[in-house]
Amino acid sequence: MNNFNKLKMYHMEKLRYAKEKQLVDQPVYYIIDYINSLNEYFTTSSCAGRIILLKIPKSGKKFEADFLFKSHYYIDFNYIWYRLLDIYKNYEEKIYFKQEPFILHVSSINIDKAYEILNIARKAGFKHSGIFLINNSRVMIEIMGNEKIETLISENRELLIDEHYFRKLIDESNKKLYNVRLRMKKFYDIMINHYKNL
Amino acid sequence: MNNFNKLKMYHMEKLRYAKEKQLVDQPVYYIIDYINSLNEYFTTSSCAGRIILLKIPKSGKKFEADFLFKSHYYIDFNYIWYRLLDIYKNYEEKIYFKQEPFILHVSSINIDKAYEILNIARKAGFKHSGIFLINNSRVMIEIMGNEKIETLISENRELLIDEHYFRKLIDESNKKLYNVRLRMKKFYDIMINHYKNL
Repeated sequence: MNNFNKLKMYHMEKLRYAKEKQLVDQPVYYIIDYINSLNEYFTTSSCAGRIILLKIPKSGKKFEADFLFKSHYYIDFNYIWYRLLDIYKNYEEKIYFKQEPFILHVSSINIDKAYEILNIARKAGFKHSGIFLINNSRVMIEIMGNEKIETLISENRELLIDEHYFRKLIDESNKKLYNVRLRMKKFYDIMINHYKNL
Repeated sequence: MNNFNKLKMYHMEKLRYAKEKQLVDQPVYYIIDYINSLNEYFTTSSCAGRIILLKIPKSGKKFEADFLFKSHYYIDFNYIWYRLLDIYKNYEEKIYFKQEPFILHVSSINIDKAYEILNIARKAGFKHSGIFLINNSRVMIEIMGNEKIETLISENRELLIDEHYFRKLIDESNKKLYNVRLRMKKFYDIMINHYKNL
């Protein structure tokens, strides 16, 4: 078996385990399952788009950041607002509010196949997508949307925003998350249509 | 002359014109001039990172958005605040405040050279970078930082944020812009060091 297929087997086993532990976002299942059904590709990580509260460490290092809230679905304003009121006083660190786009890492067997799926992603409107790793075993592609909100909302135990503004942010984030899901569906449809003809 | 060199000549002429008309950000000059001095590369567009107020059309289409404020340098809070107070009542459309990262499009003569500069970019911390176009004439790479702020601040002639919050956003944006410039310098240093040894 070649290196690509060995890697694919390893990642499929990891995915099976992650699904079992509910570590994979449900709204992205249909996309990753379809891609993994194709011989020339496999997925390594994904996010269906989400709304989060993130505590940024003083170091600013991303991998030390903590999630204070995380949802991959539309959120109810009251639910996140009271959660925020409950917790912001506990932290001197900055708290950021973020609505993040769809993100997907795909490995492909060669450059041509990588470029093929990259073009499909760009057609679906995932403009910030590209090939970011090339080696003997595989080519890796990052596919990413651009719907996002990202802003500071608390620092030094002080809440910097009021209820009215936060409600606007949540409305806006829910709308953007809806657009993320439409674009994911478009990506899926273009893929299905493209690969069924090969 | 091959296609790559023809394209490079064309883009170098465009760049000369754009610099003359002051359409290129000064803080990015040293980076694009260095890359363009290498035979295997040329740059096609760049942004040194910036702080903007953007009016989003009802259609949501990005190319129809209008800049209400734009700065590639640290900004004075009072300057942008009074600008915002002057204008927000004129617009029913959404106004977004954004601090955007460094972004650079580089064309290279082949995949190997594309991957080489991509690796340098990623070493410098420009994590959202990748190859996004491959054709007979060239390979195109997008290099992008991830320091950003992006949030709604006005809609329906209503200002959604207060002075205290906006001051925090400007402080935070100025700090992030400073980090953008440090990372650009790091990218430049790694490039210089890499290509002088070739």
